[in-house]
Amino acid sequence: MQYAELYKNELLENVIPFWLKHSKDEEDGGFYTCLDRFGNVYDTDKFVWLQGREVWMFSMLYNNVEKRAEWLEMAEHGAKFLKTHGKDDEGNFYFSLTKEGKPLIEPYNIFSDCFAAMAFGALHKASPNPEYEKLARDTFNNIVARQYNPKGKWSKAYPGTRNLKGFSLPMILCNLSLELEHILGPDKVNEFLPTVIHEVMEVFYQPDKGLILENVYEDGSFCDSFEGRLLNPGHTIEAMWFIMDLAVRINDKKLIDQAIKITLRTLEKGWDNEHGGIFYFLDVNGHAPQQLEWDQKLWWVHIETMITLAKGWKLTGNAECERWFKIVHDYTWKNFRDAEYGEWFGYLNRQGEVLLNMKGGKWKGCFHIPRGLYQLWKIFEDFNHEVADEQQSVLNSAS
Amino acid sequence: MQYAELYKNELLENVIPFWLKHSKDEEDGGFYTCLDRFGNVYDTDKFVWLQGREVWMFSMLYNNVEKRAEWLEMAEHGAKFLKTHGKDDEGNFYFSLTKEGKPLIEPYNIFSDCFAAMAFGALHKASPNPEYEKLARDTFNNIVARQYNPKGKWSKAYPGTRNLKGFSLPMILCNLSLELEHILGPDKVNEFLPTVIHEVMEVFYQPDKGLILENVYEDGSFCDSFEGRLLNPGHTIEAMWFIMDLAVRINDKKLIDQAIKITLRTLEKGWDNEHGGIFYFLDVNGHAPQQLEWDQKLWWVHIETMITLAKGWKLTGNAECERWFKIVHDYTWKNFRDAEYGEWFGYLNRQGEVLLNMKGGKWKGCFHIPRGLYQLWKIFEDFNHEVADEQQSVLNSAS
Repeated sequence: MQYAELYKNELLENVIPFWLKHSKDEEDGGFYTCLDRFGNVYDTDKFVWLQGREVWMFSMLYNNVEKRAEWLEMAEHGAKFLKTHGKDDEGNFYFSLTKEGKPLIEPYNIFSDCFAAMAFGALHKASPNPEYEKLARDTFNNIVARQYNPKGKWSKAYPGTRNLKGFSLPMILCNLSLELEHILGPDKVNEFLPTVIHEVMEVFYQPDKGLILENVYEDGSFCDSFEGRLLNPGHTIEAMWFIMDLAVRINDKKLIDQAIKITLRTLEKGWDNEHGGIFYFLDVNGHAPQQLEWDQKLWWVHIETMITLAKGWKLTGNAECERWFKIVHDYTWKNFRDAEYGEWFGYLNRQGEVLLNMKGGKWKGCFHIPRGLYQLWKIFEDFNHEVADEQQSVLNSAS
Repeated sequence: MQYAELYKNELLENVIPFWLKHSKDEEDGGFYTCLDRFGNVYDTDKFVWLQGREVWMFSMLYNNVEKRAEWLEMAEHGAKFLKTHGKDDEGNFYFSLTKEGKPLIEPYNIFSDCFAAMAFGALHKASPNPEYEKLARDTFNNIVARQYNPKGKWSKAYPGTRNLKGFSLPMILCNLSLELEHILGPDKVNEFLPTVIHEVMEVFYQPDKGLILENVYEDGSFCDSFEGRLLNPGHTIEAMWFIMDLAVRINDKKLIDQAIKITLRTLEKGWDNEHGGIFYFLDVNGHAPQQLEWDQKLWWVHIETMITLAKGWKLTGNAECERWFKIVHDYTWKNFRDAEYGEWFGYLNRQGEVLLNMKGGKWKGCFHIPRGLYQLWKIFEDFNHEVADEQQSVLNSAS
């Protein structure tokens, strides 16, 4: 079997049907994301990150795969809930809502806004509507306005003592600006890109270490503290495929090579040689990280890494990308996938065993796995490679 | 060997020397708590919880064990840093400070104040000083004033949608009011106790489940959400020895029995039958908790449980307390203790292996282990029991 076929089938036959079947709240609108292994709802709170991401996912499938009415209907269903209940009077998106849509957690987290903007942007492409367009544009502008103080009054850092900036926002902006190009226009995106690329590849990237740090001083220098020493290998590697997409757009071969170099260096540092899989967090100096979950293996880390490696392999033929891709593919497919009840597990312990017996929760929804499967399908669609024999046997025994 | 002797030796020969030797910052004052396995400082930030707790610990030893000048000097050293740098103009204690004492994280966390009040209260007993007395009293009053909105402007909960209250604060107030009795006076403490006991044993305790929940609605009812379903077995069991201390004080035998009943029920629910040890978090309905570290084994959970079981065993002769005490003692001594480099490890994975190779960090300092060893020494001082043979052999092989 070809990789392209494998990923396409998994997306369309195992993963998307799970969300279509289990995540729609027919009573109050929006999506359930707290779904156990079998798809039963175990908690009804609605987390705005995941509401936005699921709207985006179904819109994207409708835009790029096939004009299936049930996909568009699913996206519209989520968007209706999000625009009715999702934001406060200033247009800031809450972090979470009750089943009925009442605000639960205040808009302290700007990524709620990022995923809402992505959602309305993609849905506007699927089903043009000035209201969606305005929501996407206004929310994007609000994110840009809030970017230097994203937590606002909820920030617990005492001003001035240790001003750090985080990697997440420039990284998401990389991806978001491309996602909203049909709304922002190419000029705006082109104006935006050099700064974002500079931030990721020069400010957060530390040449002496060959690694990207999660938090740096405002001038990009290293801060010797828990936050400053933090490595998030999955985050770095995910950002590298956003960078490769931008590099392809601006036709910058050197930028692709640099992204591959950082990916491979991060993977060597982040791979668990004892049990396999990629660590969630590490301290760059090898100290104990403050995150107790540091040694766990997370779904998004692994599928995002597969995307980056597959893109690197395809774009340059790099043999290390190919070798690592096959290793990560095998680990991921074997440990995360649930052939029996659909979708994939999200959280494994260091040993690769299921840590949380569920398919979705507060942070895992209909996003990384289907987006990754789609990306991988498309990468391999005109880049034909057979799935290795060992992999075939894993598949056969699992289904 | 008797248990009393075992705990006394461990406290005075293995644990306290570790902190005396490694934790004092001679340059800027206060204590380092981020110490690796060998006692080397790997981070210099100063977390106010742990600054206060170490001042309390050395004061308590001076008050209750022996008038050693180095213990009092250590407590005064920490107190000086804490009173100079620890609080804002309104008397709220910051969460953390730099090595030099500059504020890093704002006073969003009222437990900083709780441990500061405990520190100055105990130090005032060791070395009477109107300034310490005033700091303890003012801080206590500030905690009481803030108790219904402890996070203040840093609270992320949208007001009114789901008003929950947490178990931590009433539980700490149980202990804190007794700790400050020499300052507050017995009348104030007697006035305070019935409310605190009622909160712990009737509001947070759920009779239908036989368990204490970490968060309940303001009227004490169950909230079916991640927060509302949360069990923290170590927290419940720790609170039960505070309750037993209060029960002894007010000579309430029924209250002791009820505390033992809750302890044993919590232990049956929280014990890991597969790998041993007590889980950190559980969902009361058996769903996936949101805490990824739920299956880890933490130092404080285990030593606090030993205290509660030993008190229950001594106060009532309850055979289940004795049986469980021996089980938890064996697990804890075997897995957490570091006979080679002093002090105990803090964080084990589910399998009982060391997860973080350190002795202190952002949350672990000079507190639970030495306080627990002191408590256990005193419990067994006039309650003679031989350490079981298997335990002796563990000790011999380890040292």
